[in-house]
Amino acid sequence: MKIFGDSISGNCLKVKWTADHLGLAYDWVETGVQKGETRTPAFLALNPAGQVPLVLLDDGRPLAQSNAILLHLGRGSDLIPADPYLESRVLEWMFWEQYSHEPYVAVARFQVRYLGRSPETLDPGLVRRAEGALDHLDTALKGRDWLVGEAFSLADMALVPYTRFAPEAGLSLQSRPSVSGWISRCETYLGLPGLGVSP
Amino acid sequence: MKIFGDSISGNCLKVKWTADHLGLAYDWVETGVQKGETRTPAFLALNPAGQVPLVLLDDGRPLAQSNAILLHLGRGSDLIPADPYLESRVLEWMFWEQYSHEPYVAVARFQVRYLGRSPETLDPGLVRRAEGALDHLDTALKGRDWLVGEAFSLADMALVPYTRFAPEAGLSLQSRPSVSGWISRCETYLGLPGLGVSP
Repeated sequence: MKIFGDSISGNCLKVKWTADHLGLAYDWVETGVQKGETRTPAFLALNPAGQVPLVLLDDGRPLAQSNAILLHLGRGSDLIPADPYLESRVLEWMFWEQYSHEPYVAVARFQVRYLGRSPETLDPGLVRRAEGALDHLDTALKGRDWLVGEAFSLADMALVPYTRFAPEAGLSLQSRPSVSGWISRCETYLGLPGLGVSP
Repeated sequence: MKIFGDSISGNCLKVKWTADHLGLAYDWVETGVQKGETRTPAFLALNPAGQVPLVLLDDGRPLAQSNAILLHLGRGSDLIPADPYLESRVLEWMFWEQYSHEPYVAVARFQVRYLGRSPETLDPGLVRRAEGALDHLDTALKGRDWLVGEAFSLADMALVPYTRFAPEAGLSLQSRPSVSGWISRCETYLGLPGLGVSP
């Protein structure tokens, strides 16, 4: 398998982390969005949407969209609950992540970390929605170890990368103890180096 | 089953169409977003994200996010390909819809149809991305009857509602013959009254 990804992208990292966790062999093909490497004719032939992550499966067939890739790689593993309702709750979180979390938390982080803007100059509507997404997560995680059921799942895998980067956008995790504790649990579970965001 | 939905929302309509297509019994609970009915304490107790559609399954358990609901209701039906790779391609389109199509095509349509703005006054970036989403669909559908494989699937179900409404935002379907033909096929397949967008 080949994973085409940009190492600064949480959407790409979650594919890498999923493959690592499942012990899948892959070649990582670094593909820089800011360098225009997702807009070359060769890349567009693989993914006409011009987005990373993209995987070429072992049989050469392409698959795009980070969360679709996670669900493909994780099929039949303990990353997806066996109970159909809980599996659907995992999907609910994964769609929520792409619609109500990533467009705000990830975009705010990108503007600060990679475009050099100060958090104070971000669009107030963007910040408000990012804060709202983190509040929603904090409420959902109150008294819970994981987002769905009693085990780490693809819901946690999909949400943790950009949530973990939120302080890079000036968004507070220390004021959200349920999120902070959950990030630490995810880091331990995935064997990631801690970012020191726990309260 | 109860479906809480706003009849002007394509995200809600696709849940209704899926339930209708599968012959599932349900009560439709009209829930107006603009009336604030998704922000009442009673509704937030069911879905803390404050969004429709929301379903209460027959056992009373809630499920949100339109595409997660489609996948839950459609599990084991002919709306999801049996081949795992094709199933993942359906997921790829469903995540693309929520990230790269709905936030532009649906938002443009809402601003024109329900906020009374003229298409000429829309944010040019919004229009450019909506046009790009429709172009991407048109290219993908060239020479194909359906988005994935050789049969109507949840990929088509997820994409057709807001695509069909695109002319309400001043976005052209007549100039995109592959999309127009596909909409007509979806309308026929789902037994919907045609909107007359075919070329």
